[in-house]
Amino acid sequence: MRIVMKFGGTSVADIGRIRNAARFVKREVDDGKSVVVVVSAMAGETNRLVALVKDAGPPAPALDARDIEYDAVVSSGEQVTSGLLALVLQNMGYRARSWQGWQIPLETDDAHGKARILRIQSPPLVEAIDGGEIAVVAGFQGVAGARITTLGRGGSDTTAVAMAAAIGAETCDIYTDVDGVYTTDPRIHKAARRIDRISFEEMLEMASVGAKVLQTRSVELAMAHKVRLRVLSSFDPPDQPGHGTLICDEDEIVEKKIVSGITLQRDEANVNVLSVPDEPGKAAAIFSLLGAANINVDMIVQSPSRSAGSANLSFTVPELELDRAVALLTAAKDQIGFSAMQSDKNIVKVSVIGVGMKSHAGVAATMFKTLGDKGINIRNISTSEIKISVLIESEYAELAIRALHQAYGLDRPPAGAP
Amino acid sequence: MRIVMKFGGTSVADIGRIRNAARFVKREVDDGKSVVVVVSAMAGETNRLVALVKDAGPPAPALDARDIEYDAVVSSGEQVTSGLLALVLQNMGYRARSWQGWQIPLETDDAHGKARILRIQSPPLVEAIDGGEIAVVAGFQGVAGARITTLGRGGSDTTAVAMAAAIGAETCDIYTDVDGVYTTDPRIHKAARRIDRISFEEMLEMASVGAKVLQTRSVELAMAHKVRLRVLSSFDPPDQPGHGTLICDEDEIVEKKIVSGITLQRDEANVNVLSVPDEPGKAAAIFSLLGAANINVDMIVQSPSRSAGSANLSFTVPELELDRAVALLTAAKDQIGFSAMQSDKNIVKVSVIGVGMKSHAGVAATMFKTLGDKGINIRNISTSEIKISVLIESEYAELAIRALHQAYGLDRPPAGAP
Repeated sequence: MRIVMKFGGTSVADIGRIRNAARFVKREVDDGKSVVVVVSAMAGETNRLVALVKDAGPPAPALDARDIEYDAVVSSGEQVTSGLLALVLQNMGYRARSWQGWQIPLETDDAHGKARILRIQSPPLVEAIDGGEIAVVAGFQGVAGARITTLGRGGSDTTAVAMAAAIGAETCDIYTDVDGVYTTDPRIHKAARRIDRISFEEMLEMASVGAKVLQTRSVELAMAHKVRLRVLSSFDPPDQPGHGTLICDEDEIVEKKIVSGITLQRDEANVNVLSVPDEPGKAAAIFSLLGAANINVDMIVQSPSRSAGSANLSFTVPELELDRAVALLTAAKDQIGFSAMQSDKNIVKVSVIGVGMKSHAGVAATMFKTLGDKGINIRNISTSEIKISVLIESEYAELAIRALHQAYGLDRPPAGAP
Repeated sequence: MRIVMKFGGTSVADIGRIRNAARFVKREVDDGKSVVVVVSAMAGETNRLVALVKDAGPPAPALDARDIEYDAVVSSGEQVTSGLLALVLQNMGYRARSWQGWQIPLETDDAHGKARILRIQSPPLVEAIDGGEIAVVAGFQGVAGARITTLGRGGSDTTAVAMAAAIGAETCDIYTDVDGVYTTDPRIHKAARRIDRISFEEMLEMASVGAKVLQTRSVELAMAHKVRLRVLSSFDPPDQPGHGTLICDEDEIVEKKIVSGITLQRDEANVNVLSVPDEPGKAAAIFSLLGAANINVDMIVQSPSRSAGSANLSFTVPELELDRAVALLTAAKDQIGFSAMQSDKNIVKVSVIGVGMKSHAGVAATMFKTLGDKGINIRNISTSEIKISVLIESEYAELAIRALHQAYGLDRPPAGAP
């Protein structure tokens, strides 16, 4: 049986942590598995390299060559870790070797700095692991033509999933600094529970609205290729690893929860555009303007305005883009013809996620009632098939999370319960 | 005209130094030259990487795989510098790209950690530089099959010379932290002068007896391929570089000095083996023993012993190997049949080097007389065609250097002289 194991930056932060990671690998190899290990750069190393590139000067105008050199420099971080882990495994008596992106080869397009994987075909690597040698793959990097590419931040997860798909791995185990995906952030609500199994779709929604365990991109890739992902902690004892959270196809989840998790997103800001003329194309003009500036708009609500023949438009943008959005709209005020604009950073987005929603009514009603009972005002609402998001004032964030977690029956059973 | 420029670790120690190196490159490119730049790792970086490898654990027994991973890790240092210098050059408005060993490809044998260059054939690189793009080559590294190799310490000089030979470069300019090769160590004798031109043979002798500007290996390679080497300082102003020292074929040196330089080597130790039976094979037994243990022996002198039918043998070994040599000989004392052994670390080797010696008599006589006049006792003597070395007590080292430097007319002419 083939598996992929991936260790992030904090799990390979120094030689001690690399040795610890090696013990997890040992366990699987001793268990008879053919193993590909994907490693990130040692924690802090990528930032150090990126800073060097930045110091090397401002980007030359319109020069793709710059991104190529960025990749040459930054990819060295994973190269080092892969060699070191291979050495540690060798010293534990195992056959192991490092594989750089160009050695596999892990072929990507030539969008340097944010390349997409095109193809992984490596008979030598498959032969090596099936022959009992451990393949330690440098994450985050690939090759386009004869040049090194990188996949963008979080790219090592993507490498791991792509390798798992390429070799037909049974699972792709992502070792990180938390022991799984939780029903909500345990720092906010102590009764949060580790989720045993969660579907790709749910995980995607979780990732996109603030559960930072996995990059959205790697979950998408896993879903597309039906790669079973497991999130595990490398801080658990290697001889007694936790169960982690399995992210898999919905069919593999026998007991479907109506709600699997509740997430909180703090980095959004609310924009209200008042008295937009109720004419064709006016709302579209606003969103085209923002779209052209690459500003993502979410949670759009249109409501009648007090002045006849016009409407108010409320939506969210990433907090980091708020100033830019406000400036763009202010400049276009006369052209669009709205009367005023308000913006507010003191809002958060709370989302309730679960595949069970598809077949259960009343999930939204429970949410609105629960928040209403606590006196929490809902500003905007958006929904998808398996997610309901509401916009509320920041100061109610923790209260809302705790109330919803309990309302949907997600709280950890009290100690001593059967 | 094609040239190779090489920058060592202190010349690319940080972004400021890399920018400085770029200015030297700019000068040559603006002058219409096709340029290959070879870079070392940033000062301290290779040591950091080697320490990581060491921390990864003791070498597994008889495992070549270990050296392969050593190379994967350690070669990343030059990879980073090559990318950074390419970026800096791009930001100065030049077309530049980094070339890793495997991208050129710079093919080596598979003696990982100390690989030898087999072949450099890179039509794409030659086409690139002749088209005006600057090729920034990561030094110290090559590729064997699909694995990264390194050339051993000082390997970036070797890379530079090999690249120069491969592209038929006019010169191979080695930028370092001194402005050339000196007639003797200026820290010992202030009147030391920078040598304008020196032959490969002389430089080889200088390098092998303590002038640490260039690795012996790179000089050998330059001599074999008739690559003209120049040693220059990257600490001189880039818009007004010094002349440095040209290391070239003897034929290019019109005015041949009888003596070109005087060197001092402190890291040798003297061993005296007393009353070795004057029988065939006894002396050979001593040197076979040391040779088998990979201990280099030099300056061998055999002299009659006081006891009839035996001889004393005096020779030098590297100071670091002295204890090992003494232990080996002590263990074989009865078998070889010598009476006693003495060793002495308080000795230095002083050498006088010059191609002119070939056609001039009296060079040795001058040396012995000069040292004798100062009351300096000569312990051992060894000579080659262009070198005379003597072993003297350590405390006379500086006195000997100064006296010889003056005796051979090497002192800087007094200020104001024509």
